Amino acid sequence: MSEKYCIGADVGGTTIKLAVISTEGEIVKKWEIPTDTSERGKHITRDINITIDNTLEELNLHKSSILGIGAGAPGFVDSSTGYINEAINIGWKHFDFGVELKQLTGLNVWVDNDANLAALGENWLGAGRGVKNLIAVTLGTGVGGGIIANGEILNGANGTAGEIGHVTVKTTGGAPCNCGRSGCLETETSATAIVRKAKEAIVKEPHSALSSIKEITAKDVFVTAKQGDIAAQQILSDVTETLGLALANLTVAVNPNKIVLGGGVSQAGDQLLQPLKDAYSKHCLPRAAEACVFELAELGNDAGVIGGASLVKQYSNEQ
Amino acid sequence: MSEKYCIGADVGGTTIKLAVISTEGEIVKKWEIPTDTSERGKHITRDINITIDNTLEELNLHKSSILGIGAGAPGFVDSSTGYINEAINIGWKHFDFGVELKQLTGLNVWVDNDANLAALGENWLGAGRGVKNLIAVTLGTGVGGGIIANGEILNGANGTAGEIGHVTVKTTGGAPCNCGRSGCLETETSATAIVRKAKEAIVKEPHSALSSIKEITAKDVFVTAKQGDIAAQQILSDVTETLGLALANLTVAVNPNKIVLGGGVSQAGDQLLQPLKDAYSKHCLPRAAEACVFELAELGNDAGVIGGASLVKQYSNEQ
Repeated sequence: MSEKYCIGADVGGTTIKLAVISTEGEIVKKWEIPTDTSERGKHITRDINITIDNTLEELNLHKSSILGIGAGAPGFVDSSTGYINEAINIGWKHFDFGVELKQLTGLNVWVDNDANLAALGENWLGAGRGVKNLIAVTLGTGVGGGIIANGEILNGANGTAGEIGHVTVKTTGGAPCNCGRSGCLETETSATAIVRKAKEAIVKEPHSALSSIKEITAKDVFVTAKQGDIAAQQILSDVTETLGLALANLTVAVNPNKIVLGGGVSQAGDQLLQPLKDAYSKHCLPRAAEACVFELAELGNDAGVIGGASLVKQYSNEQ
Repeated sequence: MSEKYCIGADVGGTTIKLAVISTEGEIVKKWEIPTDTSERGKHITRDINITIDNTLEELNLHKSSILGIGAGAPGFVDSSTGYINEAINIGWKHFDFGVELKQLTGLNVWVDNDANLAALGENWLGAGRGVKNLIAVTLGTGVGGGIIANGEILNGANGTAGEIGHVTVKTTGGAPCNCGRSGCLETETSATAIVRKAKEAIVKEPHSALSSIKEITAKDVFVTAKQGDIAAQQILSDVTETLGLALANLTVAVNPNKIVLGGGVSQAGDQLLQPLKDAYSKHCLPRAAEACVFELAELGNDAGVIGGASLVKQYSNEQ
């Protein structure tokens, strides 16, 4: 009974996902609770503590068998201290999340941003299993990224390493980004960007099949493109060209063995992957491109909690 | 007398630079020998062995006080094995340099490419001293790069990490690059690129002061720009804009504390740095830009041998 367990906690704007995972990678329990964003998210740490206590009791696990909590939040996180500079969706700003969670639970706590946790999760139990140099890209409402180099997540000088959604891809005429600039990868290749481009296309091409769709989604654009609609095809061609170039340029920096694509947009599968790989190959240093394969993420919404547990597994050894 | 020493050996197309450096960073001796590129560079390993033997004798140092040799070559190097895939200027192709040098000298040998060694050198004793996350850029005939993240040089899947000269900056109409593609950072911002742009400018702007210069150099373009020549200023404005954007985009991947600029072009100092920093700030995620300072390289041509010695210092501990 000397088995040890790690807890992952992925704090999102709507729910907090949690899991208890053995150091061997067995998911013992996975659950979620709503995120209470009232009063600038001040009750979240307490809620996490209560639900962990209840779950450990239910699982008949003593705290001494828990190596710690690996927690993630969307935003700018100082991973060395667990300090959240800002996590807009949660309401946190200048919040000492790591320290507070440690005090409340009595457990060791490591914190990183959600995209880095997703990369760590795929690196442990998903499509990037055991890959030493990995770029993980999440194409959803925004574009998130996590980079693993020499087997370690890159955090950089102040926790912004791997923020590949903010690679500048349009120096003029780009759409405004949440970061305060414009023309970021996120504003050109996220699901939000695809929808915006579809709405713009309808104005220019009223005969496009896109114009008959109410409440258009990124998925609609993929479906419509498959049916032969030129305007929809042009949007996806622009998106894959832009993303392929950005990933090619990240590749000569990091020289990954693998690029893993997750998030809602990646559910398009080969319809996304094939043109993306073509654009990538065209723009990438051949020797670096040869070393890299593309794969779809495997863990879906579980990537974050698995990555959180992976963080615990990795760092609790070093104590 | 238990002091230990590291040997750096930087193999270039014309000379091989060498140094004996103590683990404390004291340069005991620095010298160079010509590179014998005849017969596809097959005599180089022997020449290095002989000159090291002679120098150790002269310094009255026994081989047992030498921790190893850190050697660099320009080209694609597998740093895990010391195997040179190709080093065009030297004549090496598929050459097991690391193994051969180890056999001949009886010393431990670590090998990396010249730009990575320069980064390691600046990281140990130069402008990037002790910086945990560093991008080192060499702006010379070509554009080389080395990236240090979490305190370690990035080599990546097959030794092409940090090859930032091959970031694609022009997707159409770029100049051809040695890598077989076109529009690379190297073809747009190296000394060679500046000269090419000057020659193109003369054709379009025959009244430019550039047209009165024979055998134009990159330095001439800086001098002429300073004197108010619009064509020369436009060239430097294009170069710094392109380089600033590329470095901004690498910054959101790596989140460096510092970017160090070396190579001949960097001798322009503030005339390069100021517009470069302006372009960088404009295109970079503000939080990542805030964490990063620019500095000129300090070690000049010694960066490679110091980096080689640094490689020995770093890895000989791990044996």
